[in-house]
Amino acid sequence: MGQQPFRVVDDGSITSPKGFSAGGLHCGLKKTTRHDLGAILCEVPAAAAGVYTTNIFQAAPLKVTRESIASDGLLRAVLVNSGNANACTGEQGEADAYEMRSRFAEAIGVEAAQVAVASTGVIGENLKMEKVRSGIDSLPQKLTGDLDGAEAFCQAILTTDLVQKMVCVQLELNGKIVHVAGAAKGSGMIHPNMATMLGFVTTDAAIDSAYLQQLLREATDLSFNMITVDGDTSTNDMLVAMASGLAGNEALTPEHEGKEAFAAALRYVCEVLAKAIARDGEGATKLVEVQVRGAVSDESAQAIAKTVIGSSLVKSAVFGADANWGRIIAAVGRAGQPVNPDTVDIALGDIVTLQGSRPVAFDEDAALEYLKGDTVVIHVDLHMAEGTAKAWGCDLTYDYVRINAAYRT
Amino acid sequence: MGQQPFRVVDDGSITSPKGFSAGGLHCGLKKTTRHDLGAILCEVPAAAAGVYTTNIFQAAPLKVTRESIASDGLLRAVLVNSGNANACTGEQGEADAYEMRSRFAEAIGVEAAQVAVASTGVIGENLKMEKVRSGIDSLPQKLTGDLDGAEAFCQAILTTDLVQKMVCVQLELNGKIVHVAGAAKGSGMIHPNMATMLGFVTTDAAIDSAYLQQLLREATDLSFNMITVDGDTSTNDMLVAMASGLAGNEALTPEHEGKEAFAAALRYVCEVLAKAIARDGEGATKLVEVQVRGAVSDESAQAIAKTVIGSSLVKSAVFGADANWGRIIAAVGRAGQPVNPDTVDIALGDIVTLQGSRPVAFDEDAALEYLKGDTVVIHVDLHMAEGTAKAWGCDLTYDYVRINAAYRT
Repeated sequence: MGQQPFRVVDDGSITSPKGFSAGGLHCGLKKTTRHDLGAILCEVPAAAAGVYTTNIFQAAPLKVTRESIASDGLLRAVLVNSGNANACTGEQGEADAYEMRSRFAEAIGVEAAQVAVASTGVIGENLKMEKVRSGIDSLPQKLTGDLDGAEAFCQAILTTDLVQKMVCVQLELNGKIVHVAGAAKGSGMIHPNMATMLGFVTTDAAIDSAYLQQLLREATDLSFNMITVDGDTSTNDMLVAMASGLAGNEALTPEHEGKEAFAAALRYVCEVLAKAIARDGEGATKLVEVQVRGAVSDESAQAIAKTVIGSSLVKSAVFGADANWGRIIAAVGRAGQPVNPDTVDIALGDIVTLQGSRPVAFDEDAALEYLKGDTVVIHVDLHMAEGTAKAWGCDLTYDYVRINAAYRT
Repeated sequence: MGQQPFRVVDDGSITSPKGFSAGGLHCGLKKTTRHDLGAILCEVPAAAAGVYTTNIFQAAPLKVTRESIASDGLLRAVLVNSGNANACTGEQGEADAYEMRSRFAEAIGVEAAQVAVASTGVIGENLKMEKVRSGIDSLPQKLTGDLDGAEAFCQAILTTDLVQKMVCVQLELNGKIVHVAGAAKGSGMIHPNMATMLGFVTTDAAIDSAYLQQLLREATDLSFNMITVDGDTSTNDMLVAMASGLAGNEALTPEHEGKEAFAAALRYVCEVLAKAIARDGEGATKLVEVQVRGAVSDESAQAIAKTVIGSSLVKSAVFGADANWGRIIAAVGRAGQPVNPDTVDIALGDIVTLQGSRPVAFDEDAALEYLKGDTVVIHVDLHMAEGTAKAWGCDLTYDYVRINAAYRT
């Protein structure tokens, strides 16, 4: 990270950027006592941007959040519940999402259109609104500008996740310290197109909504859209960014000399969160990273990387610490991309297993040792041109099957 | 089946069509004592057709078989080994595939170009040719025209399959009895594009190679290309058909009045084999069939059916007998096809769980009972137009993970 134009803030959080507070509580949507309702609040109207699931079935809160951001590009807060996705819930679900927005807006004294809402959990059931209402009424007094508030929020957005996911970096723009931070949830149904994940980015940079939207989309394509757990996508994904502008930098524009540094910081935040989601994939025991190089283009490399990371056979082999390059090359060959069948190299970490598409002798014990680690990097070099890509996923395990064999029960 | 222009022959097999014999033996490629080398022989030159994997990495035997069929459209025999796929084996692998062809051709006294070869098993290792040679030399005397010979062949093509897969039907053309039969192997890496499956169709119908090729492709698109076990495709898939012409019917052409009946029989044979492969998917406990109707076109319905049948979440839920329509509608919504988000019905067998995209109350006990059965049919009606499709797959189980976590060891 030494070369990067930003530094990671230890103990930094989504409340580190100036102007933000956060918090969470248990209102009763989850059967456990874990938090299930949370919010991030900005003390000034923040420039906002959003990226949403591509699934045709979009949950009610997505419609409401789109409307809020579209109204004037500004948000004061985002309200999130877990335990119930408010998806496939028809007119009642839509009414409930609007009521969440207006009730929380009233509780914090802002316009309804300045609040975004998000939901995650079981679909097809209407929200228990009496619990949500009572939670909303108590929530404002729970919001704090410290790490505790941020962590309470992080807990409130989890479903089958095992760990909280948060990161914060800082950089200098026009002599001012600017923070970029993020929190996310997600562990199943994660695939290129933003599947059951929620992500929230806060920054105190000055930047307008339109430019923030552009940078957020670019960062998403190289991070959240390059992870997969099982190829499924959800009805509820969304990534929302809010920029308070309180750092005092000159507003970021495509002409600002610091724009590359800010974009890099934003990409880094998104990549850290995306990798954390992949590592925490349902039942996962390790993070798998696929690095493709030598493809005819970056897009082609991305398609190949996603096919390899999405292969159930590759994922099972990694779980079993089996150095099965045959599964990898079979996935490369079905990605629908230009590949020279005679020039492919494959390595697991530093261990070369295939060169020029032919198996080479390797130390099986060393490979086993490497594959037993908590991070496995699969390198694929096509030796055709300069296209590169990275994608992230996890292994396929007994626990994945167990978790999803009885999700509703 | 009563309405169909053919009837299933009990105890029928790939040797039921006139002119065919088959057999198998253990030559030593498999660690067990199961057969690992087999052949089908036709006593006259048979019109031949083939369909192959779309994977960029194609195993050596596919090249050789393509050449044989391309030479004059006629085959006398197909030779198959299991235990080693002869894939990613370079020039030596190609030389070995050619040697298998020529040595077996010599053993049965035909031209090399009248023999097709196929391989399945581990990839990246060269064939133990001394074992293959000795097996080839003994094989001709093992070939018989009865059920035993057919079953010995079926055993010889299995890898991780648990059961043999064979079917035979007969129909009348021009007053003559015509047989269409097939055998197949395959249980993992099965996906739309002919993944690690081998299929062999025999018929005594008179039909030329070009028309047989057309009908075989059409039958494949509605059968083998509509099954998936895990979305992966292999380097070795092939489906070969041989028509002896000994039934004595007038040669089938696009103008023949019996062509629909023959095409239906061929489709049925392919569908039975495809479903058997899906049911025998690695670790599977049940066959899952997805029926889509009301789509804007058959192609659109096919894409949706394949997305649902390929969803790891749907497959895990079926394994757990969890009536989780949410997984199904999420898969429908990410298939990239036109879907009206307000008009989707979903039923599990007779049990309606979603109507007009809204959940309806259903008997959970009855659903549990139904999902515990050995066949689960998922009905999806989009209520948009007349497009229909069927696709087949299996549940995702602990055993799938176990089998693939240590395939090489």
